[in-house]
Amino acid sequence: MKAAVLGATGMVGQRFLQLLAENPWFEIRVITASEKSVGKKYSEATRWLLGEDMPESLSDLEVQPTDPNSVGGVDVVFSALPTEVAGKVEEDFAKAGYMVVSNASSHRMDLDVPLLNPEVNAEHVHLIDKQRRKRKWDGAIVTNPNCTTTILTLSLKPVLDKFGLGRVLVSSMQALSGAGYPGVPSLDIVDNVIPFIQKEEEKVQSETLKIFGSIEEPAPIKVSASCHRVCTLDGHTEAVFVETKKETDPLEVKEAMDKFRGEPQRLGLPTAPERPIIVRNEEDRPQPHLDRMAGRGMVVVVGRIRRDLALGGIKYIVLGHNTIRGAAGCAILNAELLRARGYI
Amino acid sequence: MKAAVLGATGMVGQRFLQLLAENPWFEIRVITASEKSVGKKYSEATRWLLGEDMPESLSDLEVQPTDPNSVGGVDVVFSALPTEVAGKVEEDFAKAGYMVVSNASSHRMDLDVPLLNPEVNAEHVHLIDKQRRKRKWDGAIVTNPNCTTTILTLSLKPVLDKFGLGRVLVSSMQALSGAGYPGVPSLDIVDNVIPFIQKEEEKVQSETLKIFGSIEEPAPIKVSASCHRVCTLDGHTEAVFVETKKETDPLEVKEAMDKFRGEPQRLGLPTAPERPIIVRNEEDRPQPHLDRMAGRGMVVVVGRIRRDLALGGIKYIVLGHNTIRGAAGCAILNAELLRARGYI
Amino acid sequence: MKAAVLGATGMVGQRFLQLLAENPWFEIRVITASEKSVGKKYSEATRWLLGEDMPESLSDLEVQPTDPNSVGGVDVVFSALPTEVAGKVEEDFAKAGYMVVSNASSHRMDLDVPLLNPEVNAEHVHLIDKQRRKRKWDGAIVTNPNCTTTILTLSLKPVLDKFGLGRVLVSSMQALSGAGYPGVPSLDIVDNVIPFIQKEEEKVQSETLKIFGSIEEPAPIKVSASCHRVCTLDGHTEAVFVETKKETDPLEVKEAMDKFRGEPQRLGLPTAPERPIIVRNEEDRPQPHLDRMAGRGMVVVVGRIRRDLALGGIKYIVLGHNTIRGAAGCAILNAELLRARGYI
Amino acid sequence: MKAAVLGATGMVGQRFLQLLAENPWFEIRVITASEKSVGKKYSEATRWLLGEDMPESLSDLEVQPTDPNSVGGVDVVFSALPTEVAGKVEEDFAKAGYMVVSNASSHRMDLDVPLLNPEVNAEHVHLIDKQRRKRKWDGAIVTNPNCTTTILTLSLKPVLDKFGLGRVLVSSMQALSGAGYPGVPSLDIVDNVIPFIQKEEEKVQSETLKIFGSIEEPAPIKVSASCHRVCTLDGHTEAVFVETKKETDPLEVKEAMDKFRGEPQRLGLPTAPERPIIVRNEEDRPQPHLDRMAGRGMVVVVGRIRRDLALGGIKYIVLGHNTIRGAAGCAILNAELLRARGYI
Repeated sequence: MKAAVLGATGMVGQRFLQLLAENPWFEIRVITASEKSVGKKYSEATRWLLGEDMPESLSDLEVQPTDPNSVGGVDVVFSALPTEVAGKVEEDFAKAGYMVVSNASSHRMDLDVPLLNPEVNAEHVHLIDKQRRKRKWDGAIVTNPNCTTTILTLSLKPVLDKFGLGRVLVSSMQALSGAGYPGVPSLDIVDNVIPFIQKEEEKVQSETLKIFGSIEEPAPIKVSASCHRVCTLDGHTEAVFVETKKETDPLEVKEAMDKFRGEPQRLGLPTAPERPIIVRNEEDRPQPHLDRMAGRGMVVVVGRIRRDLALGGIKYIVLGHNTIRGAAGCAILNAELLRARGYI
Repeated sequence: MKAAVLGATGMVGQRFLQLLAENPWFEIRVITASEKSVGKKYSEATRWLLGEDMPESLSDLEVQPTDPNSVGGVDVVFSALPTEVAGKVEEDFAKAGYMVVSNASSHRMDLDVPLLNPEVNAEHVHLIDKQRRKRKWDGAIVTNPNCTTTILTLSLKPVLDKFGLGRVLVSSMQALSGAGYPGVPSLDIVDNVIPFIQKEEEKVQSETLKIFGSIEEPAPIKVSASCHRVCTLDGHTEAVFVETKKETDPLEVKEAMDKFRGEPQRLGLPTAPERPIIVRNEEDRPQPHLDRMAGRGMVVVVGRIRRDLALGGIKYIVLGHNTIRGAAGCAILNAELLRARGYI
Repeated sequence: MKAAVLGATGMVGQRFLQLLAENPWFEIRVITASEKSVGKKYSEATRWLLGEDMPESLSDLEVQPTDPNSVGGVDVVFSALPTEVAGKVEEDFAKAGYMVVSNASSHRMDLDVPLLNPEVNAEHVHLIDKQRRKRKWDGAIVTNPNCTTTILTLSLKPVLDKFGLGRVLVSSMQALSGAGYPGVPSLDIVDNVIPFIQKEEEKVQSETLKIFGSIEEPAPIKVSASCHRVCTLDGHTEAVFVETKKETDPLEVKEAMDKFRGEPQRLGLPTAPERPIIVRNEEDRPQPHLDRMAGRGMVVVVGRIRRDLALGGIKYIVLGHNTIRGAAGCAILNAELLRARGYI
Repeated sequence: MKAAVLGATGMVGQRFLQLLAENPWFEIRVITASEKSVGKKYSEATRWLLGEDMPESLSDLEVQPTDPNSVGGVDVVFSALPTEVAGKVEEDFAKAGYMVVSNASSHRMDLDVPLLNPEVNAEHVHLIDKQRRKRKWDGAIVTNPNCTTTILTLSLKPVLDKFGLGRVLVSSMQALSGAGYPGVPSLDIVDNVIPFIQKEEEKVQSETLKIFGSIEEPAPIKVSASCHRVCTLDGHTEAVFVETKKETDPLEVKEAMDKFRGEPQRLGLPTAPERPIIVRNEEDRPQPHLDRMAGRGMVVVVGRIRRDLALGGIKYIVLGHNTIRGAAGCAILNAELLRARGYI
């Protein structure tokens, strides 16, 4: 299937290209970026940041304007656009009939837009039908959650299914790549922690409720987040405190996570890891440097599951790759789900 | 007053020397260390780590064995001993009549040993009398809490006083100096987070209850901690979620913290900062690199006080210098309190 | 004496303010910055980066436009302007009669502008007279070298005086603060080295010859530099390989450096360190974290002096604080020299 | 061919296992380590540091004592032993008839032991015959150079061949993995540089002369090194200043490096990269984070080739992966060369 990537020169755009270059279902035909890059070769327009070589097949592609008329007849449009421009542009593409699979936050909380983390709420894909009726367009917009939320909700899903969720408190230690490039100045983060990330806590709190909710209404759980930037290149670490409805213990939770499989695993989607959650038994794992590339960056790694006597439930650490599982990889998995369901 | 420092060559021992060299009440007369350093000059026995020059007056002192017979007639003995040896040695000093002001964890949870964070529970100093009766010795052992607990409890004290505490959840991002030297290998922490610190969560949970409790029994609050090491040299950052008994809001909490003064402030102790808690209004503070030396490292800096709707209360960030406020500085403040109360 | 600081909000501007707030000879009366800051209080216009509080006396000063008419009757004007604007602006101030003591590179290589590292070439101050005659202005422009050059030339001076210099090769490991703020993106430097700094090598090579030259012509030595950015906040480390005219050995070089004093020491200038070069004997010093604040950041620290058999001479490591000794501190020392010589 | 790895649990030992697990010629049958690991499974005995999973086929291998009697009938023995023990142990293996391919420094400078960097001095392999005659053993010891030297000499080889070498000065910025595990304490290197690495400069200076020399005598060139540790996980960066015998310019040098192929390329050895030297044209490359894995870590990446007017020649930056190209990878390439030449 033919694909376009909007906003292909940024950090997440680069991950889209790196991952799609190896994807068996999608082939990139068009890449777009902002004014100043249009007309250049991709290799000239981009400061490649991923530490391995840029996919050779893509380096000569000419950058197009971000506009429905420039992408020709592709089957799916991946959006790595910055929030400031994504809102309007993605609507233009949907109106023009394109299936837009977006990593931007602009439409995530729209009532008729699926916010998909495919192992968690694949059934929300049906919101597309409602969206098309309501918006009167042939295309569609489908979104994936914020990186921190993606990692959190995937780890919580088996706990929710087996034991029920009450309050969830999460404290994150987020990587630098989450802020894009140039992003965080080195003078602000070397030998330092920045205990604030613009709008992040609000996103974790609201997106989690939508993902765990039914199509009609948010889940009746309470989420509180505290989000912090630490000096790590890739990989968000989250300390999660969970109140469970049923009493449980760490062994049961571990077992539930170990056994958990989602719709992408049942469908055998190409980007789906065999097991979406890996639980490590070492007392000091997961660690970003050692675990972020588990399952090619699509797995979340959990460790230190232990009782939480304050909330009445459990606490644990979860780690995921923020620009793969938490961004481009999740969007591609969404697109694969859409294809398996016949939407693409 | 004449002082000895036990275990003077380690990270906390060095802080003791640095701080005591400028203290108007105490003068170091004796420094001790382990076998291999005994007989050397302090400057030869120590790899000085603090980035400013070693106090000149101390560099020529000869290192003594860690033994009551070696310290002569000092008025107070500061202990920066490692936990493995502190337990027995500190008892020997107390038996020999010395007032031992210890940063080690060995005796912190003994029922008759004060665990003092002087702005928070100065009144626990009276446990000394009980200790002397029970243990039949003329000296005494007084301890300060673990670094993470010291910072946490100081920030919580005005909240407890004004609004009452229910559940407290804390997630820490702790500095490398907390592990001593050589401590954390660089290969384990550059571009990484280690989500585990041996026995730290247990200490935070139990010490907090003792500090906030009466002399007889622990406080009826519930504390849950998740402790993590990040790539910061000095300064522990803690994300704190608090259930309050009375409803409150961030402004009231800020005001309570701003106005808070403890016994060291009332007594005008030399090491006491003018205000023990500073609340910053910027959205991205406190930060270790910018705030750890506030009040010469004796102040805890709070920021981002906001409502917590999951627990029903507030959440905030607190930061303190782990080897000053959280270790040597707190011990020295304890000694000053002891002197003001006539115990030294 | 009354002083103005041009470009006071940047990294070097902040160092000027921090250092001048404690200077006994100069008092800041006016601070200027770019358009967007004019009219604001300094504390509102500035993201203070220095890890200690902003000098309180300055935080309320109103930022003025960078213009000779805005600075009133000050005695000296310190320039921390970016190179792009410094050239023209500094000339305007000199024409208007002001003594401009500049850290900018714009005029450093002008034949009639002193490029002063005061312990090294204080006698070049006389170029001011030539400058005034030639340019027909009452003010003057005096510059200090690039940070890397300042540190290098100070360490080389006693070697030049005693043993003569032939070829000098220098390889630097430079700190992040040298790039200003926001400067180097964290994604570019965490777990990385950037082996390139724009125009830095050219500056080291040409400025060194001017400094060691007579007023009329550059020194007959050959300098080759390779400049690199490493993940250090402050403090440039330089590996220096030196061909000496006379045969020498490490002990003689150490002695020459130990004994070296310059004009600022002879004049007792307030910012002059007692000894401008400190030689450490440990095999692994100097280190930025431990040595950059030696002599309040005004000293260069040398270590590992050893024979160099390839060039026929010696090699050593030198370290200095790039924004103090290498920028604002050197400029202030220049101003003190100018005052001692009656130019201010 | 069957292989054993001695000292398999350390940093370099792990690289051997990771690389050999994918090698088409060699299959690991035996792994050895020190006393305390003997009898354990490899996965239990090792703290795996490489950020990807341990090769599954090896995790269950039982660790054997480091002793010729324990390795059974393997065809080649790779040694990742620490220097302190390697000297004697490797001789024991050679006496017992084993071909020992060693990364240890103990025998590198022995006159009858090849010090091989296979693209540079493959012909030195013939020293094996001399060694066997002289030492009267059926096995042999073959070594690869120190990591810094391997990277340096590979980059210098085409310059030597085309233009001749006079003086060579090198200043290194070396990665943390070069010190092994636990290696460098984080408190020593975060926000710091350590301008000293034990015995490193001596090794670079002497090994380079042996490699570039004939079998009988060292090369008539002069090498001076200054070695420094920076806060990078993997990848040594070296600033190289070269006096050439013939006059040359950067373009000619680039062309010589681009075209350079060595014996491993001519023989098509499996671990040989297609091109052993890659020259980047960007002004700020090579960088460890972006370039260390070029050619699966077996390529050295050169950049910033420019004239050096002080020495009369050129200067450039070269980067290589210190534990792959600079250690285990080079040793494996040596073994492949030995097999191609019939020594294994």
